[in-house]
Amino acid sequence: MRDFSKDHRWLSLNTATVRHQGDLVAIVDACARAGIRAIDPWRDQVAAIGLDRAVRLVRDAGLDLSGYCRGGMFPADPGLRAVVRDDNRRAVDEAKALNAPCLVLVVGGLPQYSRPGSVPSKDIARARAQAEEGIAELLEYAAGVGMRLSIEPLHPAYAADRACVSTMCQALDICDRLDPEKSGRLGVAIDVYHVWWDPDLIAQIRRAGKNRIHAFHVCDWLVPTRDLLNDRGMMGDGIIDIPSIRAVVEAEGFDGYSEIEIFSNDWWTKPMGDVIATCIARHRGSV
Amino acid sequence: MRDFSKDHRWLSLNTATVRHQGDLVAIVDACARAGIRAIDPWRDQVAAIGLDRAVRLVRDAGLDLSGYCRGGMFPADPGLRAVVRDDNRRAVDEAKALNAPCLVLVVGGLPQYSRPGSVPSKDIARARAQAEEGIAELLEYAAGVGMRLSIEPLHPAYAADRACVSTMCQALDICDRLDPEKSGRLGVAIDVYHVWWDPDLIAQIRRAGKNRIHAFHVCDWLVPTRDLLNDRGMMGDGIIDIPSIRAVVEAEGFDGYSEIEIFSNDWWTKPMGDVIATCIARHRGSV
Repeated sequence: MRDFSKDHRWLSLNTATVRHQGDLVAIVDACARAGIRAIDPWRDQVAAIGLDRAVRLVRDAGLDLSGYCRGGMFPADPGLRAVVRDDNRRAVDEAKALNAPCLVLVVGGLPQYSRPGSVPSKDIARARAQAEEGIAELLEYAAGVGMRLSIEPLHPAYAADRACVSTMCQALDICDRLDPEKSGRLGVAIDVYHVWWDPDLIAQIRRAGKNRIHAFHVCDWLVPTRDLLNDRGMMGDGIIDIPSIRAVVEAEGFDGYSEIEIFSNDWWTKPMGDVIATCIARHRGSV
Repeated sequence: MRDFSKDHRWLSLNTATVRHQGDLVAIVDACARAGIRAIDPWRDQVAAIGLDRAVRLVRDAGLDLSGYCRGGMFPADPGLRAVVRDDNRRAVDEAKALNAPCLVLVVGGLPQYSRPGSVPSKDIARARAQAEEGIAELLEYAAGVGMRLSIEPLHPAYAADRACVSTMCQALDICDRLDPEKSGRLGVAIDVYHVWWDPDLIAQIRRAGKNRIHAFHVCDWLVPTRDLLNDRGMMGDGIIDIPSIRAVVEAEGFDGYSEIEIFSNDWWTKPMGDVIATCIARHRGSV
């Protein structure tokens, strides 16, 4: 396992972590000053300053991307399918323009949450089928432009409204069906927050292997968790044994960035520089 | 599948559903008046009026029990193991005195939450091993007095602090190891709130079979969920397709009570009679 204690060269900042403290320009500037070498920006943050400007910004700062957030939200009424398809193709194009290594997919939950305006449904099996159809269709397009797709299983607490793919096993089953050659163009983004609880986690990381481990995200699970979406913890403040998960991921050959993604009503109230300084310290000591 | 639309003879009320509106005496009285035939009481509610009085109360009201809540919370420091063992044996004895068909087990999470005072740990694999050891030990005692033990997998959102057994598959793996003869003395309590999201749910219900399905609990998953523990929904108000899960459970031969267990800051503020009337209506229409 790589030694993170001496520097933060393998730290990437998911820009949602400081989304309330500044726009992408301010975030890139702060990262550059802190010696952070990589980010994972969100589409709305890119759109807010314009794609062309974002491309120049990232290039001029000499930043790598560890991913691009995000495509997905596939389950939808038939009348919305073209919107979903075009939206996701644009996400692939943006990822390509930004030179991202992969597009992270949050596949969506039930259609009324995935794509508002869809008829309410309780049929999660159908949502799963729609998600897989959507991934299959997008995979062709993404292959055409040379962009990898990374399915991110989300914690089962989000199964209804954000991702009906809740486990590594489900995500890898989809990979097996859609990319049986294990080409690596379809893989997973492993976020410890979403998968730490899974008794099958270690076996599934090994099953994924280097080709399918596209990204590794860290934050921490707080007890108590006061908000289902936005009370994620800084690494070290919760109960996830992050180093032991990273050890398994790296044993498979993963040698990319360790990306910090924290949705937190608490951390969003603190100055950007303080949050970034804390991220760097915890990356060295708790990841 | 049984037709619930005509009456509520198969409704059981988990008494936590109205725990803030009255003591066990008041709850039993309200159930009797509403024609409810079964309850599942909690240990603290029994203790509050005394075990002997609770036994007479339930018997005089002619109520069945659909279970007794709860044993478990096994992970603990070595110095607390005797406390854990004795506490769980008392739970078995109380269940027996109350003529419950089974003792529901919430196995506990990390030791510092399962048994406060234990040294903080992030080792969930170790917690799982301790939970299984605890179940194994209690199973011998329970067999001696003729009480079934029912492992309740809890939603992965509770893996850290309440139950490191998060899926039906985990629970049934434990059953296979500790009761390979499938005698039925060890089984599962299936609560739709905890397992609805699981892509493997239907297969695991079939795997459990009649002998191991000891209890069936219902409520609903609300979107958004505003409190991780106490924002569970009345059946029909959320997104769980309860009838489709009940159909699979009953196809395995389960013919017991459908137990309503709702932890809800909202419903706890309403008059007990109103909550019970709503439970009855939703049992007929949304279960």
